Amino acid sequence: MTTTETGAAWADLQTHFQELADLGGIGALLGWDQSTYLPAGAAGGRARQQALLSRLRHERATDPAYGRLLDDLAKRDDLSPVQTRMVAAARKDFGEATRFPARFVAEFSGHTGESYAAWTQARPANDFALMVPYLEKTLDLSRQAASYFPEFSDPMDYFIDQSDEGMTAAQVGDLFAALRTALVPMVEAVTAAPAPRTDFLFRPYPGSAQLTFGEAVIRDYGYDFTRGRQDLTHHPFMTRLGSHDLRITTRVKENDLTEALYSTLHEAGHAMYEQGVAEELLGTPLGSGVSAGVHESQSRLWENLVGRSRAFWAAYFGRLRDAFPAQLRDVTEEELHRAVNTVARSLIRTDADELTYNLHVIIRFELERELLAGRLAVRDLADAWHAAYEQNLGLRAPSDVNGALQDVHWYFGNIGGAFQGYTLGNVLSAQFYAAAERANPGLTGDIERADFRRLHGWLRENVYAHGRRYTPNELVERATGEAMTAQPYLKYLREKYGELYGVTL
Amino acid sequence: MTTTETGAAWADLQTHFQELADLGGIGALLGWDQSTYLPAGAAGGRARQQALLSRLRHERATDPAYGRLLDDLAKRDDLSPVQTRMVAAARKDFGEATRFPARFVAEFSGHTGESYAAWTQARPANDFALMVPYLEKTLDLSRQAASYFPEFSDPMDYFIDQSDEGMTAAQVGDLFAALRTALVPMVEAVTAAPAPRTDFLFRPYPGSAQLTFGEAVIRDYGYDFTRGRQDLTHHPFMTRLGSHDLRITTRVKENDLTEALYSTLHEAGHAMYEQGVAEELLGTPLGSGVSAGVHESQSRLWENLVGRSRAFWAAYFGRLRDAFPAQLRDVTEEELHRAVNTVARSLIRTDADELTYNLHVIIRFELERELLAGRLAVRDLADAWHAAYEQNLGLRAPSDVNGALQDVHWYFGNIGGAFQGYTLGNVLSAQFYAAAERANPGLTGDIERADFRRLHGWLRENVYAHGRRYTPNELVERATGEAMTAQPYLKYLREKYGELYGVTL
Repeated sequence: MTTTETGAAWADLQTHFQELADLGGIGALLGWDQSTYLPAGAAGGRARQQALLSRLRHERATDPAYGRLLDDLAKRDDLSPVQTRMVAAARKDFGEATRFPARFVAEFSGHTGESYAAWTQARPANDFALMVPYLEKTLDLSRQAASYFPEFSDPMDYFIDQSDEGMTAAQVGDLFAALRTALVPMVEAVTAAPAPRTDFLFRPYPGSAQLTFGEAVIRDYGYDFTRGRQDLTHHPFMTRLGSHDLRITTRVKENDLTEALYSTLHEAGHAMYEQGVAEELLGTPLGSGVSAGVHESQSRLWENLVGRSRAFWAAYFGRLRDAFPAQLRDVTEEELHRAVNTVARSLIRTDADELTYNLHVIIRFELERELLAGRLAVRDLADAWHAAYEQNLGLRAPSDVNGALQDVHWYFGNIGGAFQGYTLGNVLSAQFYAAAERANPGLTGDIERADFRRLHGWLRENVYAHGRRYTPNELVERATGEAMTAQPYLKYLREKYGELYGVTL
Repeated sequence: MTTTETGAAWADLQTHFQELADLGGIGALLGWDQSTYLPAGAAGGRARQQALLSRLRHERATDPAYGRLLDDLAKRDDLSPVQTRMVAAARKDFGEATRFPARFVAEFSGHTGESYAAWTQARPANDFALMVPYLEKTLDLSRQAASYFPEFSDPMDYFIDQSDEGMTAAQVGDLFAALRTALVPMVEAVTAAPAPRTDFLFRPYPGSAQLTFGEAVIRDYGYDFTRGRQDLTHHPFMTRLGSHDLRITTRVKENDLTEALYSTLHEAGHAMYEQGVAEELLGTPLGSGVSAGVHESQSRLWENLVGRSRAFWAAYFGRLRDAFPAQLRDVTEEELHRAVNTVARSLIRTDADELTYNLHVIIRFELERELLAGRLAVRDLADAWHAAYEQNLGLRAPSDVNGALQDVHWYFGNIGGAFQGYTLGNVLSAQFYAAAERANPGLTGDIERADFRRLHGWLRENVYAHGRRYTPNELVERATGEAMTAQPYLKYLREKYGELYGVTL
């Protein structure tokens, strides 16, 4: 038997990569359609189509011939650096797809379905006790899942690595602890100051005009509508239907000016990241965003650091008032800017503002870390939740409905690594923005002129183009010159909210 | 080796059937999205996804184990009648998918692509000569395709059987000859009478109000929006994305009242047929409409026999005027009814009215029959086209652009069987409607009250529910008590247009 030339083997591999990418895109189309246009009566048939496509994709992702090809290529010494990284990433994915025994996958998947169904009953009934046995089993199965990856000594490290490759529970835990120490007194000080006026946000704003305005903004940002589009859905998301088909969705409330706008800016940030991946990486395992945290950094950057900045409203307040002259007749630019940056303690993560949001995430991260480590029993989770909210936010939910039963994640099989990406994203958004500003002095002035070319260009070059070529930690260091750090984020929050609320933070 | 029990073999077969149906539905979604929402930049990636999915479906449709299972079941004597028909239909499909050598399929497909590309140049340049070698090769390949099915002595029979199973060139040819004999003098007489007023059809009609009106009508018809939806596209179509997902598309012209409305009624007719297939047939080879002709009979029935009838406008004129009071202020119900039934000789098939349309089809059917039989050389086709138009419609196109270069079909590899279904549909629409009326006296009165339950019910029971269970000829005989005949259709045209134009036909 002769060894295939590297060139021919590489061509085979590219074909396989492209096929996996295309099956992924087809699956995304099935999901996008389900969330946007699918007729109600077609839900059952669609679920069957999705199961079939998942199976076809799994067959190809776990094809032993593919595994042998990867092993073969991993031994060659004539691969380019990017090829070497492609093979490594593909082998990681292959291991992820093949190491679980089929019986285990079936058991976990069956249990997840039952747990989710039970949660849809338990939450409205405020019956946390009902969920205890389900969560206990989820926890057992999660530990078992991690055990198939003995290279991780801590199950939490395995789950974090799934969404934020190379990051560890210790790294994230230290970062979050530092954040909490800084955030708790900031929230304290800001919420003690007088609240801004917000009444005008809730006047009637026709939906189509809201959508038109939001789409004009993201067109300015650089979202490419020839390689994407926006549609309506219940829970907004970005999805990759193909290398050149990055769609976003939003929802409109006709009596809320900010709902659609900020969801549009957020999802456009995710999509611009994907639209910026270098051509040479598309259709390969490196051809999309690298991690939950870095992805969220881009949605948050365009939503918050840009879209809730004073410079942004200097550029857009006039256009917004042209779109809604009656609704904004008695509103100043400053009032609008203050209104979209209102800080208030609340019980619900998804409704939280920029400043308090991270505390919701940190609470969940710490609880799931304790659960996985066996230091917190599931039966004590509901009380631990209340205690953590009192400690971090000074609030106590009147029941478990908005307590331990609040988010679907844990009840859908995701314990460990389900939440940290949101806050990693906030932290990184400021770190990337600060680096972009160092490289492009006067960036705020660009935003005041609705000129996003330098910012978008810097992000493309330093973040987007690389796809999954570097690990998140490597990417952050290359782009910003330092390891992930909360300092730029805390500096940003202190300056912004200190000035807005007239307090020293 | 023991023979598998029929029950177990049948369960395997059903799984295979369902998988083929689901892959078909996924492919339809890819096509639907391409025609409605796909961003321009994603076209290349989508084509690759479609090619991949076609290959996956073809692999399953031609799986030798599937063929053996079908052969095995075909020998059993304990199948129910419907099971027997399912196996027969599946074996026909399997033969269709397997008999062509792979090299032949690749050659035909490659040639089709080149021919289509050449046609997009030749048509605007009025260069029929450029297309002669392409058409000659298409003709050769078409004869070769038919040769893989030696059970058909005439290639034309093979192609007709593809879209209208069990019908033959002789049967269709006789029917069309009789039709022509009747239609030519009718067109003569009607076009000699004064033309109705139509100016108001081309006033400005806002698109969204047009769509709302059309959707209200098809909801009345019985189109089920919980198992379908309507979107905008360039060339309207109906598509089956799943057993319970039958979508339609339309296009709107803001200065043409009839464009969107009648396309909506037409496509809804196709979709109602598919929505009415019996549950037990869904996900099997019998689970959709039986033939091009029967399908077109339903689109035409709801579009023309119902939607262009005097009874229809008795029910809907008031609602239309409520939707467009300014545009219709000086228009009577009678004027509207006459305007949507204007007859005029024209050169373009797709723009033709109910009366002249069939002559366009008959011309094409006869030309392709002559081509396949070798009695007409491709180089003489353009002249033969002009001669046929002069003979049948008394018109001559000023060039080949709207002559032999007019339709894409021949230039996309379809010679033989490409057009006849349209006229078979017209003929059958009247035959089915007459049978429905015999079974439901006073059906016209129902329509005047916008009550379509008896008509829809009769069609469901006698046509839709059966899917592909019977051949088209069997279905027609079962539903109407007689073989396919042009008499009800000619009677319908004579009565309708004789009365409308005040002539004796």
